[in-house]
Amino acid sequence: MGKVFDAAEVANHASPESCWVILYGKVYDVTDFLSEHPGGAKIILKLAGKDATDEYDPIHPPGTLEENLKPEALLGTVNPDTLPKETPNAASSTAETNEGPPPVESFLNMDDIEQAATKLVSKKAWAYYYSASDDKISKRFNTEVYRSIMLRPRVFVDCTRCDLDTTVLGHKLGLPIFVSPAAMARLAHPAGEAGIAEACRSFGAMQVISNNASMTPEQIVKDASPGQVFGWQLYVQVDRRKSEAMLARINKLDAIKFIVLTLDAPVPGKREDDERGENIIGSMAGAGAAKAADRSADDTPNVDNASGGVGKQLFAGTDPSLTWRETLPWLAKHTHLPIILKGLQTHEDAYIASLHTPQVKGIILSNHGGRALDTAPPAIHTLLEIRKYCPEVFDKLEVWVDGGIRRGTDVVKALCLGAKAVGIGRPPLWGLGAGGVNGVKRTLQILADESKTCMRLLGVEKVDGLGLQNVNTRFVEQQIYDGPSGLESIRSSFRAKL
Amino acid sequence: MGKVFDAAEVANHASPESCWVILYGKVYDVTDFLSEHPGGAKIILKLAGKDATDEYDPIHPPGTLEENLKPEALLGTVNPDTLPKETPNAASSTAETNEGPPPVESFLNMDDIEQAATKLVSKKAWAYYYSASDDKISKRFNTEVYRSIMLRPRVFVDCTRCDLDTTVLGHKLGLPIFVSPAAMARLAHPAGEAGIAEACRSFGAMQVISNNASMTPEQIVKDASPGQVFGWQLYVQVDRRKSEAMLARINKLDAIKFIVLTLDAPVPGKREDDERGENIIGSMAGAGAAKAADRSADDTPNVDNASGGVGKQLFAGTDPSLTWRETLPWLAKHTHLPIILKGLQTHEDAYIASLHTPQVKGIILSNHGGRALDTAPPAIHTLLEIRKYCPEVFDKLEVWVDGGIRRGTDVVKALCLGAKAVGIGRPPLWGLGAGGVNGVKRTLQILADESKTCMRLLGVEKVDGLGLQNVNTRFVEQQIYDGPSGLESIRSSFRAKL
Amino acid sequence: MGKVFDAAEVANHASPESCWVILYGKVYDVTDFLSEHPGGAKIILKLAGKDATDEYDPIHPPGTLEENLKPEALLGTVNPDTLPKETPNAASSTAETNEGPPPVESFLNMDDIEQAATKLVSKKAWAYYYSASDDKISKRFNTEVYRSIMLRPRVFVDCTRCDLDTTVLGHKLGLPIFVSPAAMARLAHPAGEAGIAEACRSFGAMQVISNNASMTPEQIVKDASPGQVFGWQLYVQVDRRKSEAMLARINKLDAIKFIVLTLDAPVPGKREDDERGENIIGSMAGAGAAKAADRSADDTPNVDNASGGVGKQLFAGTDPSLTWRETLPWLAKHTHLPIILKGLQTHEDAYIASLHTPQVKGIILSNHGGRALDTAPPAIHTLLEIRKYCPEVFDKLEVWVDGGIRRGTDVVKALCLGAKAVGIGRPPLWGLGAGGVNGVKRTLQILADESKTCMRLLGVEKVDGLGLQNVNTRFVEQQIYDGPSGLESIRSSFRAKL
Amino acid sequence: MGKVFDAAEVANHASPESCWVILYGKVYDVTDFLSEHPGGAKIILKLAGKDATDEYDPIHPPGTLEENLKPEALLGTVNPDTLPKETPNAASSTAETNEGPPPVESFLNMDDIEQAATKLVSKKAWAYYYSASDDKISKRFNTEVYRSIMLRPRVFVDCTRCDLDTTVLGHKLGLPIFVSPAAMARLAHPAGEAGIAEACRSFGAMQVISNNASMTPEQIVKDASPGQVFGWQLYVQVDRRKSEAMLARINKLDAIKFIVLTLDAPVPGKREDDERGENIIGSMAGAGAAKAADRSADDTPNVDNASGGVGKQLFAGTDPSLTWRETLPWLAKHTHLPIILKGLQTHEDAYIASLHTPQVKGIILSNHGGRALDTAPPAIHTLLEIRKYCPEVFDKLEVWVDGGIRRGTDVVKALCLGAKAVGIGRPPLWGLGAGGVNGVKRTLQILADESKTCMRLLGVEKVDGLGLQNVNTRFVEQQIYDGPSGLESIRSSFRAKL
Repeated sequence: MGKVFDAAEVANHASPESCWVILYGKVYDVTDFLSEHPGGAKIILKLAGKDATDEYDPIHPPGTLEENLKPEALLGTVNPDTLPKETPNAASSTAETNEGPPPVESFLNMDDIEQAATKLVSKKAWAYYYSASDDKISKRFNTEVYRSIMLRPRVFVDCTRCDLDTTVLGHKLGLPIFVSPAAMARLAHPAGEAGIAEACRSFGAMQVISNNASMTPEQIVKDASPGQVFGWQLYVQVDRRKSEAMLARINKLDAIKFIVLTLDAPVPGKREDDERGENIIGSMAGAGAAKAADRSADDTPNVDNASGGVGKQLFAGTDPSLTWRETLPWLAKHTHLPIILKGLQTHEDAYIASLHTPQVKGIILSNHGGRALDTAPPAIHTLLEIRKYCPEVFDKLEVWVDGGIRRGTDVVKALCLGAKAVGIGRPPLWGLGAGGVNGVKRTLQILADESKTCMRLLGVEKVDGLGLQNVNTRFVEQQIYDGPSGLESIRSSFRAKL
Repeated sequence: MGKVFDAAEVANHASPESCWVILYGKVYDVTDFLSEHPGGAKIILKLAGKDATDEYDPIHPPGTLEENLKPEALLGTVNPDTLPKETPNAASSTAETNEGPPPVESFLNMDDIEQAATKLVSKKAWAYYYSASDDKISKRFNTEVYRSIMLRPRVFVDCTRCDLDTTVLGHKLGLPIFVSPAAMARLAHPAGEAGIAEACRSFGAMQVISNNASMTPEQIVKDASPGQVFGWQLYVQVDRRKSEAMLARINKLDAIKFIVLTLDAPVPGKREDDERGENIIGSMAGAGAAKAADRSADDTPNVDNASGGVGKQLFAGTDPSLTWRETLPWLAKHTHLPIILKGLQTHEDAYIASLHTPQVKGIILSNHGGRALDTAPPAIHTLLEIRKYCPEVFDKLEVWVDGGIRRGTDVVKALCLGAKAVGIGRPPLWGLGAGGVNGVKRTLQILADESKTCMRLLGVEKVDGLGLQNVNTRFVEQQIYDGPSGLESIRSSFRAKL
Repeated sequence: MGKVFDAAEVANHASPESCWVILYGKVYDVTDFLSEHPGGAKIILKLAGKDATDEYDPIHPPGTLEENLKPEALLGTVNPDTLPKETPNAASSTAETNEGPPPVESFLNMDDIEQAATKLVSKKAWAYYYSASDDKISKRFNTEVYRSIMLRPRVFVDCTRCDLDTTVLGHKLGLPIFVSPAAMARLAHPAGEAGIAEACRSFGAMQVISNNASMTPEQIVKDASPGQVFGWQLYVQVDRRKSEAMLARINKLDAIKFIVLTLDAPVPGKREDDERGENIIGSMAGAGAAKAADRSADDTPNVDNASGGVGKQLFAGTDPSLTWRETLPWLAKHTHLPIILKGLQTHEDAYIASLHTPQVKGIILSNHGGRALDTAPPAIHTLLEIRKYCPEVFDKLEVWVDGGIRRGTDVVKALCLGAKAVGIGRPPLWGLGAGGVNGVKRTLQILADESKTCMRLLGVEKVDGLGLQNVNTRFVEQQIYDGPSGLESIRSSFRAKL
Repeated sequence: MGKVFDAAEVANHASPESCWVILYGKVYDVTDFLSEHPGGAKIILKLAGKDATDEYDPIHPPGTLEENLKPEALLGTVNPDTLPKETPNAASSTAETNEGPPPVESFLNMDDIEQAATKLVSKKAWAYYYSASDDKISKRFNTEVYRSIMLRPRVFVDCTRCDLDTTVLGHKLGLPIFVSPAAMARLAHPAGEAGIAEACRSFGAMQVISNNASMTPEQIVKDASPGQVFGWQLYVQVDRRKSEAMLARINKLDAIKFIVLTLDAPVPGKREDDERGENIIGSMAGAGAAKAADRSADDTPNVDNASGGVGKQLFAGTDPSLTWRETLPWLAKHTHLPIILKGLQTHEDAYIASLHTPQVKGIILSNHGGRALDTAPPAIHTLLEIRKYCPEVFDKLEVWVDGGIRRGTDVVKALCLGAKAVGIGRPPLWGLGAGGVNGVKRTLQILADESKTCMRLLGVEKVDGLGLQNVNTRFVEQQIYDGPSGLESIRSSFRAKL
């Protein structure tokens, strides 16, 4: 590591035959790695011979390099004086911000925060966070469906006291709102997922760490307070050893109380905003893994696809072959943490999940923020569908929801219909982009304040006092699935197995 | 009071340590009062050392100062020659109006009047009147729901004669339209609530005086005609003695025939247009009262809230702990006036109210003009919900409605569905802003004319001839609450108490 | 009549004390008439001392002057050389049209024609034709309701032959489309109602002449072809002798086969576009009649109303006291023509009408083009309501509809649901404005072509082959009145009378 | 053919008396043909004396001239040096494209492709493809109805494998998506229908050749691969001999496996975008045929119609007199190919079709892309209507659909509801316009990729695994026809015939 290179010398190695890059002041020979990079060689070659730190850093957790490169790939360091000086016009992954960002106190609602973040984060980050599949019908409907539920305020109820305390999986929480797993928080702000954790800490809010976080789980939970609750999201990899190694790391972290197994995206949805982006990101997280089934176009004729966007690249290596029969037992071998299944969208699957207690402790009704299958139902639909076909699920499992939450009234409506906790995905990322840790705090503060105001005006003091009597869902009821139910055949086949 | 100060000397007292202000030519030392001001010290300090009359006047009824300051706080008078001369650019709480306002005859409908007022009143006044909670869904829906009800005109009916005369609580009225309680009319126009009273007088219309009126009840009813009917709105204060004192004053005013107890806003809704305003108002009305429960953010971590807007400040001191069991008996001790409960939004609460006759004589179905809980139901929904679940309420109580009325057809539709009287909140304030007393008259005139035209075209001569046969509510019926009713448990618990 | 005045001399008589006007080259002293003019003195005084022909002509049928002025009011003639020369900038009641109007062949649909006419006719004419009551909800809904009905095309049906021939009241017609009564066609084009008659003649289409036509019935039917069918619309006047005189004239015109008694507008609706217009028209049609009940504002306090628009002025003198019991027998005394009742909007009234055969031969379901009561139901609603509650009406009466027709598919849908004939009100006026007689022909041609194409694609050869099986009205069915029906009490009271 | 003319000489023959045109360098005397041209003489006369190749070529398949002109009409050749040189401003039927078209890889969805094509193709081509009848309500609704169907993704299903293979009429296909018959592909791109065939070949997709293709069937199927499947669309001509001759040609082409008899457009719809176009096209395809019944205006008075657009001209000669009783037996005499009936829009007609097996093997539910009757139901409606009234149809016939498909989710939804194959009409034409053969491939690629992603996210591996359990059609069910069914009378009359 003693060798010091001039930038000009590094620049000579900018071809597939000899490809060097500078990262954090060090010079690496990545020629052999080109063919293994899940994002493809092209993305690396664009940065060949140059300092790639700005592109690489916000999307790779520490340790990624070390895991994927052989020790001899590290050639030495670069002489910093020989690097081109950054100019105001230099390519930067975050947008320029001549004037400072607005004070977080000026944000009154989620829209304010999203707008501020839209101006502050890079186009790439915006595209990745904002995007949803196809025509974004599910994304929009996720929010609109809450607007179509009416509240039923009661009067002459003492609402001096009101709090949002609740218990989830036996853990006390200050808020029934949790942060849903969402990838790559450092695209929004250097504080990253650890910044979200800091904000959650102030509110007693739960956080689910994304499998594709831009920081390591260890970094994220490092400053956890005694009662702080984290979950960790698992995308099972085709190369199971990778997932097993990761689970082993997670099992060691006391702050992580459960595993969230995401099921609604065995293959990536088509997120066009993201795909239209610059696509210069190559996640090394899944490097070496087989090119996965999501490359659905590969077996069709030779009309090139667009390069795919951040979302598709993050999916590289994800295993699309999970099943009830195989995956849960495998998981039991590698963790004793409770399992939460995420992405259920039918009463049938909720019912099957309820047959997998006690390993499975809960389910998250979610359509992946509208990012998986467009025109998939919002969580509220699935919640009402379960109520209609198999309400006993609520007795066996905790049912959480996410998607579309923009107001405290939305949180309260979901709770009234039986949700134990309500997840937010994009809002904390926009908060992070708009104001770092304080932006996330502001996000949680607004939703908490709005939720409490809502509960008081409904005349309800405690979260567990909320119920069906507080909402008018007549409009939504008219949209809920009314076709043939698979419950009977599920029951028969389950009885047969016993 | 003999001492005369130069403005320059007053200007030296502009700090928390020594804070003087000029009001109506007098100089006050408000240093001790800073900590008691319900709107907070900051608002006063902005005006410290200056003439605060323009900011103070339109939002404080006469007597407020005297009630809240000790006599020795009055230091003397200011030498008017030493005050800075007002220039056209000087801060003014009302917008500049180079050309005079349009003649009221040119207004053909409520929208015309709102548009004119929007141009004429100060931004602060506009924000306070226009605002509603969250996304203003209830505010919009209040109006839209009337649009979705169809009328059923009958033909070959002699409609030569038609009048709007009606009887409410035994009082004869010229119109079934009343002015709902709405705060701070002098923000719109110096004529204030007394101007509204003058307009009502011409039409035999009833007026409910806001608890937060910018004039005293005595001023407002001063010129009442013999048959003129007023109600007075009560927000019960945490410091009950204040409310009791106020009731004692009200009991002495013959023109005030009933008390309206507002129940739909035990804590303030989130009115973002208002909160984004300049927020320089500090109501002294509730000065000295404990900071109330509505400061819902206070017990959450240190992310400052925006200062809150006019609406939130007016709530300071309001008691959020009212109950059927405690509040009505307390009220019975302090007034013999009939009680009207305002803000009922469920059939259950309407039913409970009907069990509290004869003290309670009526209810006002209202969602506070969409200003309390967003997505709360419009009064029309509650009206139809009562019809569906417990129509006997109509026999026991007078049922009034407000919210969303913009046309005479809206008034008539509410009457057809069983309302005895129909309240308007924003329209008379816009009328006041657009043309003073004549603007309010024009508002009432338009609605009266439209209502009569509507009745004639329906073939109905008298208000009490209107009924279900005159409206097609099929569309709305499909939205009405259809979930579990709390009636049975209310009946059991009420029987248990007997 | 020998006296010849200079214009300058006439100009000296421009006050209420002495008011002269020039009309068609003659000089009249209208001082005594000022107080009798139903449009008010003000409108005449604006033109006092001047040549009023341009304002007067397009809205008064010939003979109006003679009927309303005493012979001695005619003072003489004006010396035309002394009149100011008309300049391109001179006030003209029709808009300037530098380039000629577009050829009628370029119009493909009703919207094209309305757009062209909007550019070509005077603002006053546009406002009068375009306007509808209040928020124009019924006007828009009249058209939208047709869009929500779906058609059910059948295949493998020989559609070589297809025609629109039909029979109405026993008269053979070439089209099931008729021209609804609409006032003052000469506002659109000098060809006026006679021009509409000429166009109808080419198509075998029926025309109902407005009570407020800008030409005399005699002029309009002058060139009627042998089989051409006209109706005449009656607004009964407070001064019955006027109506009786008019009926006597109508009875003498062979081409007029029936009387249409308009019932949906006993008082005028509030047509704001019209009221915002210049309002310089004073119809003399009802001169001398008592100021009628429609001045609903008169008995309310002194906030002046806007002057009212063309629509309100035309209503002056209309009798709002018509009843089944009095009006029909009176009418029987003055005409033996079949009676068609126009403006029925409930199944109850349709049913009562069916009890008044044989004098009443038909009904027109109509909400007056949305010009009477806003949010009144479109004719399609009433049609379906009759089908639902009392389909026997179709056996006793011919049921016609009007309002909202913009496409041949609309015509066919109404016929499928049971209408015998379908009226168009604004389209022929826009046609007249856009292209005179040829514009009206184009209007009828387009609707005829579209109707035939529709029938062929449905697989139906003849108008009487259309039926419920050809339309899907599921969406509209969900909106139809479902409340208490007045039929039972109508039946009892009718039985009691027998 | 030896004679060589100067252009100037040809230019002398530009009148109805002597009309010459230049086509492909040859000079023709078309004077006698003027009266026979189905598009009318006017269109030819506009090009008389000139080189008409650019106008003629893209809309006439080769051989058209030879079939319609006598040999002696060919006078000789033109001296090319005497022709005017084409300048950049010269009239060209395709729009200018200074910069090259965007690469097809940049298109992410059907909208991208339509937008690109809109810029690249001529206005005439755009108008012809884009247009639909009247207000385009059916065209829009065709797409929107898919948006209102929700999907029901199942989780924990291995979706490693997934393919779109299917079998239609016993033929193996790589895609359940077929190209619907649509006229005149060469208007979009010189590759024309053969280019579409080339693209289909890559995907194993089926193509139905339009009766009005701009290339001959022989040209289109020339390079067919062994398993490639074509259908041929028949519009039966009034002059049956023409249709019989065409069928004889088709019968000889092995690649054509079935005949699609189009029934939903016995007369042309009113496509206003098309009619507003320049209308300079005169199809010779039907030359000599009687002017058909679709000239519905001809028997009405003399208000000229607009010339009619491409769509109407293509219809010239089409027989509107087809019936179940006559047409199918006639067809049986002239082809043994299976018959697919296209354009069924009611359950009644689907049921009748099911009584005509085995000659009829399938039906295509279609409203002609919204181009026939506006407000006709989308195919999804008819599909659900059949399910409701006579699901046995699915056992007897293959049911295909087309209209409105813009996403793979749309394809999958139609398959879930029982469609065996899903047609796309405009998308391949836009693809052709946007990028020639590669544009069509991109179109198919996108839909294939989206469909597979959808199936995987639903948890379904094979097309025949899709079913009602995968979709929530609650919203659409509320729109389906609910009126009187004609099934009973069909059954009786069919029994009577046996």
